[in-house]
Amino acid sequence: MTTMDETTRNGVDTARLFATLDAVKGAPEIAKFQFRATNTWVSGTHNRSTVHGFYGATQEMAHERAWTFDADHPPVLVGGDEGPTPVEYLLHALAACLTAGLANIAAVRKVNLTEVTSTVEGDIDLLGILGLSDQVRNGFQRIRVSFRLAGDDPARLREVVEQSRRRSAVFDVITNGVPVSIDVETV
Amino acid sequence: MTTMDETTRNGVDTARLFATLDAVKGAPEIAKFQFRATNTWVSGTHNRSTVHGFYGATQEMAHERAWTFDADHPPVLVGGDEGPTPVEYLLHALAACLTAGLANIAAVRKVNLTEVTSTVEGDIDLLGILGLSDQVRNGFQRIRVSFRLAGDDPARLREVVEQSRRRSAVFDVITNGVPVSIDVETV
Repeated sequence: MTTMDETTRNGVDTARLFATLDAVKGAPEIAKFQFRATNTWVSGTHNRSTVHGFYGATQEMAHERAWTFDADHPPVLVGGDEGPTPVEYLLHALAACLTAGLANIAAVRKVNLTEVTSTVEGDIDLLGILGLSDQVRNGFQRIRVSFRLAGDDPARLREVVEQSRRRSAVFDVITNGVPVSIDVETV
Repeated sequence: MTTMDETTRNGVDTARLFATLDAVKGAPEIAKFQFRATNTWVSGTHNRSTVHGFYGATQEMAHERAWTFDADHPPVLVGGDEGPTPVEYLLHALAACLTAGLANIAAVRKVNLTEVTSTVEGDIDLLGILGLSDQVRNGFQRIRVSFRLAGDDPARLREVVEQSRRRSAVFDVITNGVPVSIDVETV
């Protein structure tokens, strides 16, 4: 009999993770997912997104509950500070993706984690988005992620972070780019 | 005398926005910003980011309050569903950035908005992040944004969306990519 202690590491149920990998190997179409966010403008730079439904494993699914997130600009950028800026959500997404990945990877490799914290910093020159220079890009010029990990031996912890980078969806999107189409309906 | 009615449109204080643009033109160094998120692993794929301080206008600043955001994987991906997935936060960031931009741009162009909603969909094949195919990328293969706008005449509304796309920080990052460095400290 397999006990929780044998299959759960770092809070990851590795038996279930391996079973999921086997299921996908047997039926690759279950790996096709579509994630979504819907957004409603509130006023000025303040707007709000809802995240709930998604498609995956050949069916429509939904998170157990819907979450809403407010975004805004701070007063120094003529906003009302009703939420983080959109670019801060992007930095959060990067930290969250790398951290989720490394917890899974560490569990599979039987590496124990006791602490994982990270800081993500993105440098941006607003001359781009303000339209004041065509020499300056609109987005971040560079992003730095600083991880601090405690757990099993340092060399293995570093390898886990490196493998998480190699398999991170958000790291891939942010470093390599993705085609984005925009449709507009006016009513 | 200038009244609120004359300078505020779509909830955007255009007089303050133009004053900010003039200030940046006179001292371009105030346009250098750094945004940040700090993240702490909770358990498994569940982790939590805090967004509070940032640098801008030549000084350390902070939002009026700190926000925290939980991220997790849903049960179908062996998570506890304690928050949206990291990639859903990324879709939210894109919708929020385009929407904030178009509200500002519409205000400057004296285009009135009455409603702006959008849906962002990102297609992802998890064979990439699961390490089951080296033909499939880790991140989204494509992202579609669908806007629905009401307000002044449709042609001008479409132009406003197009200009927002041209000046969006998140759209730039997601479509063109940004260099990301990762440092690891083990303790």
